[in-house]
Amino acid sequence: MANYNAPLNDMHFVLFDVLKAHSLSECPGYEDATEDMVRAVLDEAAKMAENVLQPINQQGDIEGCQYDPETKLVTTPTGFKEAYKQFAQGGWSGLSASPEYGGQGLPHLLKIVVDEMACSTNLSMGMYPGLSHGAIDALTLHASDFLKDTYLPKLISGEWTGTMCLTEPQCGTDLGLIRTKADPQADGSYHITGTKIWITGGEHDMVDNIAHLVLAKLPGAPDSSKGISLFLVPKFLEDGTRNPAFCGGLEHKMGIKASATCVMNFENAKGWLIGEENQGLKCMFTMMNSARIMVGIQGLGLAEKAYQISLGFAKERLQSRSLTGPKNPEDKADPILVHPDVRRMISQQKVFLEGARCMAYWTGMHLDLSEKHPDEKVREEADDIVQIMTPIIKSYLTDDGYFSTDQALQSMGGSGFTQDWEVEQLLRDGRIARIYEGTNGIQALDLVGRKLMLKGGRLPRTYFAKMNQMIAELHNEDHVKHCKALLSTLQESLMWLAAHASKNPEEAGAAATPMLKLFALTSMAVMWATMANVAGSKKGDGAYTEAFYDGKLKAADHFFRVAHAQAAFFKADVEGGKSTLMAFAEDEF
Amino acid sequence: MANYNAPLNDMHFVLFDVLKAHSLSECPGYEDATEDMVRAVLDEAAKMAENVLQPINQQGDIEGCQYDPETKLVTTPTGFKEAYKQFAQGGWSGLSASPEYGGQGLPHLLKIVVDEMACSTNLSMGMYPGLSHGAIDALTLHASDFLKDTYLPKLISGEWTGTMCLTEPQCGTDLGLIRTKADPQADGSYHITGTKIWITGGEHDMVDNIAHLVLAKLPGAPDSSKGISLFLVPKFLEDGTRNPAFCGGLEHKMGIKASATCVMNFENAKGWLIGEENQGLKCMFTMMNSARIMVGIQGLGLAEKAYQISLGFAKERLQSRSLTGPKNPEDKADPILVHPDVRRMISQQKVFLEGARCMAYWTGMHLDLSEKHPDEKVREEADDIVQIMTPIIKSYLTDDGYFSTDQALQSMGGSGFTQDWEVEQLLRDGRIARIYEGTNGIQALDLVGRKLMLKGGRLPRTYFAKMNQMIAELHNEDHVKHCKALLSTLQESLMWLAAHASKNPEEAGAAATPMLKLFALTSMAVMWATMANVAGSKKGDGAYTEAFYDGKLKAADHFFRVAHAQAAFFKADVEGGKSTLMAFAEDEF
Repeated sequence: MANYNAPLNDMHFVLFDVLKAHSLSECPGYEDATEDMVRAVLDEAAKMAENVLQPINQQGDIEGCQYDPETKLVTTPTGFKEAYKQFAQGGWSGLSASPEYGGQGLPHLLKIVVDEMACSTNLSMGMYPGLSHGAIDALTLHASDFLKDTYLPKLISGEWTGTMCLTEPQCGTDLGLIRTKADPQADGSYHITGTKIWITGGEHDMVDNIAHLVLAKLPGAPDSSKGISLFLVPKFLEDGTRNPAFCGGLEHKMGIKASATCVMNFENAKGWLIGEENQGLKCMFTMMNSARIMVGIQGLGLAEKAYQISLGFAKERLQSRSLTGPKNPEDKADPILVHPDVRRMISQQKVFLEGARCMAYWTGMHLDLSEKHPDEKVREEADDIVQIMTPIIKSYLTDDGYFSTDQALQSMGGSGFTQDWEVEQLLRDGRIARIYEGTNGIQALDLVGRKLMLKGGRLPRTYFAKMNQMIAELHNEDHVKHCKALLSTLQESLMWLAAHASKNPEEAGAAATPMLKLFALTSMAVMWATMANVAGSKKGDGAYTEAFYDGKLKAADHFFRVAHAQAAFFKADVEGGKSTLMAFAEDEF
Repeated sequence: MANYNAPLNDMHFVLFDVLKAHSLSECPGYEDATEDMVRAVLDEAAKMAENVLQPINQQGDIEGCQYDPETKLVTTPTGFKEAYKQFAQGGWSGLSASPEYGGQGLPHLLKIVVDEMACSTNLSMGMYPGLSHGAIDALTLHASDFLKDTYLPKLISGEWTGTMCLTEPQCGTDLGLIRTKADPQADGSYHITGTKIWITGGEHDMVDNIAHLVLAKLPGAPDSSKGISLFLVPKFLEDGTRNPAFCGGLEHKMGIKASATCVMNFENAKGWLIGEENQGLKCMFTMMNSARIMVGIQGLGLAEKAYQISLGFAKERLQSRSLTGPKNPEDKADPILVHPDVRRMISQQKVFLEGARCMAYWTGMHLDLSEKHPDEKVREEADDIVQIMTPIIKSYLTDDGYFSTDQALQSMGGSGFTQDWEVEQLLRDGRIARIYEGTNGIQALDLVGRKLMLKGGRLPRTYFAKMNQMIAELHNEDHVKHCKALLSTLQESLMWLAAHASKNPEEAGAAATPMLKLFALTSMAVMWATMANVAGSKKGDGAYTEAFYDGKLKAADHFFRVAHAQAAFFKADVEGGKSTLMAFAEDEF
């Protein structure tokens, strides 16, 4: 079983030194989120992750969840029930939920940092409360007082969990194809009938009740995504009756095996409308940003754990001599960290992780500002950033987090391929994050086809303005040049896109993925330059070790080593256009 | 269970139309390898792969191999024993082995094509005879007549299997650290004692005897890689006595679960020297090229299967409308193949697969020419190509084959992540190919640190000459320009490397991986241009469908779409140098 230490130092550095996130405590409603409070919460979260979640992670993967076709019940792996109870009793389920219903009302940003630790140590377990969180948000924003009063306290305390029932066999991305039906009943409730698949936590043995949030169609509703409504369907009704919402089986998956991924059959199950008729997708979308950022954090968290394991391995494993002579003459070989090609894999992970963490927390902070800042203009600008960064965070952190984990495995050779080191599990677990909550291709289309156009195209303008503000703070002239050059490359690609996509929307479709990567790379550049700026200013102040500061400064140099060539490649991919992609007839593949 | 059709059309096209591989039948010893013969063998191989290997692939993954600590025996999954017997009885074990001992003496190239089918359909099963093949080569080239007469016929017929016992707990890449000992006995044999790990097929229930090829040290041998000798250690001695070479357990791995990966304990096991004392590594290296090319083929074969599955899915799965209006108006949505971002993933696979196949077969043909061509100069040049291309084939086909498989999975969304579609197994199985038989980083170091310098640096000269010969055949002026520009980029990077690596060998270590990628990209360019050349000339001749030829021409266009930008990125990575990598002190990570 591998070890894990929450990277608290790096988390503190980004939160307090780079982002000054304690300023959130000046926002009404976040008065409690002082630096001391945040540090104390993170210390406790680290203990919870290391002592409660981590010890059962590998066994959870080996055992997986078990389905009993007789009872239609699901059993979670050994230790999960107890660990979940500890998690819930610690108050972690309701960290950012409304105090009105028993939540702690702390910033999203703090929840993101805690989520990172949970994802590092036990993604499967983290998904159960993760889905509850989505249900809590949807109910808080859209449900009637009756539903809120009945369900929110139990979901926030973690006594019950929630689900999101969107996907059906014939529809994943294209929710307009939903067939699940909702029949209105005389008492104001609805009877829900249909089959949902891929339902995380649809059935399990860790809690007494499960609140399903289900997308379904009312009689006569438009035959498109505009005809979908959202319903709450509990496993047990208030009087204890079992609602006919049964699990029909589990998916057999490549990873996250301790997360119960259920087929759910609703057979005239009783439910209640959440929000207005035919507004179901809109209700779902209000919680999409935080859900998608959360999935990005999964990629980051898994990659962090893999980095720790592979770095430890590279420092201990003795194999071959350094190309410049023995570095460890007492032994017959040097630690593999001395070899440039191993360093390539380790450094790539460090540069990804620390930059991506900064980018994710920066976005998370804007999520809080967009909701709580007293100044409307600040709220709006923050919302622009959240909107444009959400698909980037989701895709980039899960794609590059996966490849970072992959580098960890590769640097460990055969050991990485065995279950002895947990990295192969992290890789398998992380594979799904690139798919669910909207595939990464869908995220890219969301960025290019929707976000760039929202509010008359102001989102990219706000993005550029924010980036330029951060660049204006930099002391290192080389970094300023690098960042400005990358922003120019991005700007040129955006202009190419604007000119071509208006003539043919398939140009946007073809450009979407490299355009998202170019946004991510540019954002990473500004994050790294900013972190180096802070490290350079603070170096010697004793708040962190000299090695910590020097590591930041050197990682920034390493980031910029090939950043321009990479940006040029993405730009070429954008401007390569759709023609060679769309040229193939179906039988020419 | 997914379907698989051997891509015979594409195999024929590369073999007969592009490479004119039937010309091998003009080499002494390969007289049988006529076009008709090769076509007939490939037809049979396709049937064997589809009907014998494919049906047990998924069950093999689910069951895995089982170890019994009481008996120290290993049981393979249901159906493996019977399938292996069919494989052996079909003569597939000895396809390219010497007719003197019962082999069929057919070209390596043909074996490579057959291997591709076996890897597509059941990599785990394919590894047992794959290891035998290595043992056969080593014995054929280096063993005494006594050992050859005793072991070769049974290994070639497949009645027995072979292993390669190199790795030990403290040494993988660095074989100088081997501790296994060989004590000379009065009868000319040796007693072998030590522990070997990662031994493929070290113990299993499919055959009556296993011949282990074991690296060990003689008393007083130099304490380095120059003090290693090679021994043959059978499971059962000729008189039926059980030799104390026992399996101590199985590795629990991410993939290739039906391949028994054993810990082997040799406890004064009787063995015989193969070749000369202290020349063990040299003996091993003589079969390294074909073994490494074979591992490259694993990456290709798995990716081929994944491509077939994902392409079929993309044609059938209906989701959302085309951006340019309905393409499938009878249904509520279009097949996802209409979406540019899905096409990006499908086209990327096609371009990789068909180009890599051409590159691998081209290299395989040179392996045959290097051994059998009557003209010494042709043999030498062919050997140059084999030497320089081997690490490229091994790394590029396994890395990019893995990423191609990954694209297949991604294009299928959640379905790809489930066991329902086999792609996730292909991805897990393929992960190891980037590691074993020398990690891909080691391949890159072999290219940059060894191959570029061999024979006074003539290998890259031969490579450039061959590439220019192929370019001279092209009719498409754009393709000529593209290829020449890529060769120039490669040349510039090589010059940079020559200037810098001589001053500091760590510059070579840091540049190795991107340099290998640049070689691979340049080779792919010439392969694609050549295939397009042949397709353009033959289009309309009816040998293949028009769609086949058009697909080749369009795929070549798609390849060149971003090739220069990609080359520029690799060049920047080479010339980025070692400084930012080596700058980190150990505690700064």
